[in-house]
Amino acid sequence: MKYWNSTLKNMAEYIPGEQPSNPDEYIKLNTNENPFPPSDFVLNTIKNTCNGNLRRYPDPTAEELREQFASENEITPENVFVGNGSDEIFTLIFRAFIEKSDIAALPYPSYPLYDILAEANGIKYEKVNLGADFSYNMENFLNRRYGLVIICNPNNPTGTYCPVDKIKDFLDTYTGLLVVDEAYIDFYGGSSIDLIKKYDNLIVTRSFSKSYSLAGLRVGLAVSSKGIIEGFLKIKDSYNIDMLAIEGAKAALIDKKSFKYNIDMVKNNKEYLEENLKPLGFEIIPSRANFIFVKHKEVPSKELYERLKEKKILVRYFSGNIRSEFMRISVGTMMEIKALCRELNTILGV
Amino acid sequence: MKYWNSTLKNMAEYIPGEQPSNPDEYIKLNTNENPFPPSDFVLNTIKNTCNGNLRRYPDPTAEELREQFASENEITPENVFVGNGSDEIFTLIFRAFIEKSDIAALPYPSYPLYDILAEANGIKYEKVNLGADFSYNMENFLNRRYGLVIICNPNNPTGTYCPVDKIKDFLDTYTGLLVVDEAYIDFYGGSSIDLIKKYDNLIVTRSFSKSYSLAGLRVGLAVSSKGIIEGFLKIKDSYNIDMLAIEGAKAALIDKKSFKYNIDMVKNNKEYLEENLKPLGFEIIPSRANFIFVKHKEVPSKELYERLKEKKILVRYFSGNIRSEFMRISVGTMMEIKALCRELNTILGV
Repeated sequence: MKYWNSTLKNMAEYIPGEQPSNPDEYIKLNTNENPFPPSDFVLNTIKNTCNGNLRRYPDPTAEELREQFASENEITPENVFVGNGSDEIFTLIFRAFIEKSDIAALPYPSYPLYDILAEANGIKYEKVNLGADFSYNMENFLNRRYGLVIICNPNNPTGTYCPVDKIKDFLDTYTGLLVVDEAYIDFYGGSSIDLIKKYDNLIVTRSFSKSYSLAGLRVGLAVSSKGIIEGFLKIKDSYNIDMLAIEGAKAALIDKKSFKYNIDMVKNNKEYLEENLKPLGFEIIPSRANFIFVKHKEVPSKELYERLKEKKILVRYFSGNIRSEFMRISVGTMMEIKALCRELNTILGV
Repeated sequence: MKYWNSTLKNMAEYIPGEQPSNPDEYIKLNTNENPFPPSDFVLNTIKNTCNGNLRRYPDPTAEELREQFASENEITPENVFVGNGSDEIFTLIFRAFIEKSDIAALPYPSYPLYDILAEANGIKYEKVNLGADFSYNMENFLNRRYGLVIICNPNNPTGTYCPVDKIKDFLDTYTGLLVVDEAYIDFYGGSSIDLIKKYDNLIVTRSFSKSYSLAGLRVGLAVSSKGIIEGFLKIKDSYNIDMLAIEGAKAALIDKKSFKYNIDMVKNNKEYLEENLKPLGFEIIPSRANFIFVKHKEVPSKELYERLKEKKILVRYFSGNIRSEFMRISVGTMMEIKALCRELNTILGV
């Protein structure tokens, strides 16, 4: 295309999960959105922020949110950066913390956005395969040529979890930058955040989109050593988070009761979903997230995905080696799960 | 710093206008915020959007906002890109539409963020001086080595305006990419948007921060040829604008009556400000924006800035050649302007 530079020309395009323009007509189990709404406290806080002050610029660094998250996690605000969703944080990582001459190591199968963002920033990368059971063998990322390693924990789309001990062992040897994407960590715990106190080459990222039911607001966090956080602040756009998103995220951190309630509900529903899929002939990868990665013993995932879509039930189907054998199903409300199982029953003729 | 790449190390840091943590104690005439709040219609629309749907991802391309702006401007939605403030748009321009081997031409004195963003993306640039009266001599940008030219129209911080005819003439000869930053165009009109129909190498940017009183929301637009807009969509983060910002911007476009009222008020107040500064001995650069660029015939701007700050009145003072002779004053409410003039009277002992 005319006027496109070589980076833009050479990069692939990221295709997010379908967002139908009439979402209420669909059962959307394809983008890992939380099936439960944010609490009234969060919504009312945002509404109260929605006043004449919107004419003013927001706090460029979202200082109060940094302080709140820091004090909850026994770190300092200087260890916390607030981004416009964790997407922005990954973009900034590729722009600021790896030289063009270096190589990034990205897991497979994992979040395909990593690859696209590496390409969008002219960064070369290698794919490192997860084990046959989709577990992380951190030894495979130990390569002196890797200046940046990203792992997703729990891993999207498989739901598999890499224990903190393994990450710690890796950091004892590895000298490049390690990013642990914890977008889904809140559901079952096991964060690596504590490790940032010991290792200055670790960035842990978080998201308000899933566990806090705030995908519509676009707030993500990076937690790291002071020097790296200063780098994020230096390279970010001057006002990257809007005023309403900042206040919404602050309120979400305060309202622990609703947070815990939603998390528990998602976990209950996940168990219910798994119990109902197994008798239908599905293999389910053990997941510590709000989604499961499954394949049927006979019917290809592509076919199931397409037939469910006809019935206005969206699950996520990825093309490509390995991934295309499976499909990813986000945990929905009980009603949504029942509707899904009903349709699968019909399709599979069980 | 450890782990910073060379781009991050070598770039300068952008310092936005001061945002005191207690803005209500200050008269803030330093960041060109609109002194009048967004309308009730806009605020109520956002509040009504603030519901359980926030658990969902926003529309990744803000399709309805693109359609609305396009139909108002007799272009197509394929000519419109929605960014997280026009800051994000400039970042994307440097990332996607200029090769690292090319040179960007940036005006001086103008918006200092352009320089920083060029540096943040490893793009070499040259500064092109405005005329002695701060007018744009577009011939000075006609250089075959320039792959990208940015002009700000009306220019920040001087308020000077470059007529569309001059821009058209320039485009008849120039073959690189031209960006016209129209963040302040709504106050006195004279947009170059129509030119995108004829020239596929023009990007016009807009902002909801100033004329629409929505700096807190972070919404900017890029208007250009279809191929360039496709490039923006390809390289942007997957969900770059949050749900509330999209709905707020849509409502702001609908409520023309409040928009026009605010614009008229700002223009009236600007006249009043100018009329009151002249007798105090200020030279005022003719401005077509919601701010004025002034210097006193005797007292240096730096001193005035500092003494006003002591009195909790913030104006914008820039360091550097030329710019430091002047200071930029945003147009405030009548009460704010009166307070400013009162303090200046005292300081200057008129």
